[in-house]
Amino acid sequence: EDEVYFSSYGHYGIHEEMLKDKVRTESYRDFMYLNPHIFKDKKLIMITWGCSTHCILLFPVKKKKKKFLSEEKKKNIYEAIYLKLSNFLFQNPFLLNGRLAEFTMPLDPLNVVIENWLGYFLLFESMLDSVIYARDKYLAEEGSVVYPDLCTINLAALGDMKKHADRIAFWDDVYGFKMACMKKAVIPEAVVEVLNPDTLISEPCVIKTIDCNTTSALDLQFSSDFALKITETTECTAIAGFFDIFFEKNCCSKVTFSTGPCSTKTHWKQTVFLLEQPISVKSGENLQGKITVQKNRKDPRSLFITLAINTMKQTYTLQ
Amino acid sequence: EDEVYFSSYGHYGIHEEMLKDKVRTESYRDFMYLNPHIFKDKKLIMITWGCSTHCILLFPVKKKKKKFLSEEKKKNIYEAIYLKLSNFLFQNPFLLNGRLAEFTMPLDPLNVVIENWLGYFLLFESMLDSVIYARDKYLAEEGSVVYPDLCTINLAALGDMKKHADRIAFWDDVYGFKMACMKKAVIPEAVVEVLNPDTLISEPCVIKTIDCNTTSALDLQFSSDFALKITETTECTAIAGFFDIFFEKNCCSKVTFSTGPCSTKTHWKQTVFLLEQPISVKSGENLQGKITVQKNRKDPRSLFITLAINTMKQTYTLQ
Repeated sequence: EDEVYFSSYGHYGIHEEMLKDKVRTESYRDFMYLNPHIFKDKKLIMITWGCSTHCILLFPVKKKKKKFLSEEKKKNIYEAIYLKLSNFLFQNPFLLNGRLAEFTMPLDPLNVVIENWLGYFLLFESMLDSVIYARDKYLAEEGSVVYPDLCTINLAALGDMKKHADRIAFWDDVYGFKMACMKKAVIPEAVVEVLNPDTLISEPCVIKTIDCNTTSALDLQFSSDFALKITETTECTAIAGFFDIFFEKNCCSKVTFSTGPCSTKTHWKQTVFLLEQPISVKSGENLQGKITVQKNRKDPRSLFITLAINTMKQTYTLQ
Repeated sequence: EDEVYFSSYGHYGIHEEMLKDKVRTESYRDFMYLNPHIFKDKKLIMITWGCSTHCILLFPVKKKKKKFLSEEKKKNIYEAIYLKLSNFLFQNPFLLNGRLAEFTMPLDPLNVVIENWLGYFLLFESMLDSVIYARDKYLAEEGSVVYPDLCTINLAALGDMKKHADRIAFWDDVYGFKMACMKKAVIPEAVVEVLNPDTLISEPCVIKTIDCNTTSALDLQFSSDFALKITETTECTAIAGFFDIFFEKNCCSKVTFSTGPCSTKTHWKQTVFLLEQPISVKSGENLQGKITVQKNRKDPRSLFITLAINTMKQTYTLQ
């Protein structure tokens, strides 16, 4: 069964999808390639979860050792890659791979942490918590920086009656059966999908700014009032969530990317919160509301997101 | 946390996707609506796994009790639906729901079993095994039928150099890194996706016919020689697998559907086996090979599928 050993790896598709996310990968790369002064004479930690990010992990290596990854026929290819990396690290001890929170070895204070912890709606999977832990435990007190350093979470209003009917009215007549009761189950599931920017009916609105160098784990559960400036007189059928990422601190070449519906799509797509009852809105008005983001105590990876708009209040989950 | 209780259901998206698969749902429905004589004075069992198929489960009920599913505000909606169904079943004991193999109550011999066990590449998840078990344990000896009664598994050759490059050559240069070693990991993962019928370069070829009324669990692991009649002089880059389903036995109105790339797409899509090295083929030739389908002993849901064409031999997994 040697030939089928590879099957036990789980799916590579997810890694491939992330590697092919050029917005993500090239942003991290550009930050590193365009700002070499940040790494000069510094100790550098890079933490990656899973294997999909090994490309990010390799960028700093590239100029030192060409063709670092040669063709490799060992069974567990990722392990082979990491073995090579580890060998390299012994000689060039400025790169580390792994979940830093689980590191038991003593480490000298570090100066730069580059992380790829971003989840759906930024905070899904709560991986920023580990970055905060690593930052507080391992970073030197002065002059040390976590990258990306700034993140914003944004909302925008959507008007898409066709999709609303397809997701909600659909249950009124399913092959002749009335299943309207299902709406109450469908609505609370936040949906991760790529939006058509033509369905945006408001300007985006920042509901949270996170400075990764100062934020705390507590700060990642929050409430925020928002006002969405409506750009079209129509029905608001859903609220979209997305995030923007900034590599700025000490950078001579700042790098930023957005996961919003008007930008090149990423594997994070957008997060959609359907409204059971569409809300009539007028161009120019401010659609005001309040959002609350909480972790699910029973599953810390998943999030509870509550939206209150007018008399409507709905809690969604992202899981 | 009452309002977020619904979140614990898991994802409804998958159920919705299946319900919206009209090819699947309407085929089962049409078979039942167009062939009432099959059910007349018969005991009928319907077995469903999961909840997504409750629509299929309900079709025989529809004409007896309109608006069977009223709006329901109980927390666990599916449970409420099933509770109502159960109540109905006590009065009309010809419908059962559940995994029949796990039924412990004594049952009178049954005459008709309608099943929705079909998986990717037909046999993924090995659910037909349970149908066979139920058939042998509960069906009356004479005149009893399992539906769908006939299934075929088919292969066809694909020529799509663009996709081949995107999946295989991609690894030769990933942001400047040579990761060709990854090809050996990517190839064995069979891919479930909707194919562009323009990329078909052969006629379809039946590699397996399954009569659900006579087949055995052993028969679901098999080898088969095949010959794909090539319709275009080009490079064969992959082999596609799909299946056709027939409701025929005793039917005055036969119902059939195909999951092939030339038919309306279904949630089963097609299953694609990538060839690491494309094979040059000529229009009119027969591309001959052999396929072997085996269960993974360590995970009986998943399948090992081995293709041998010319000197190429590759085992794929569907998991």
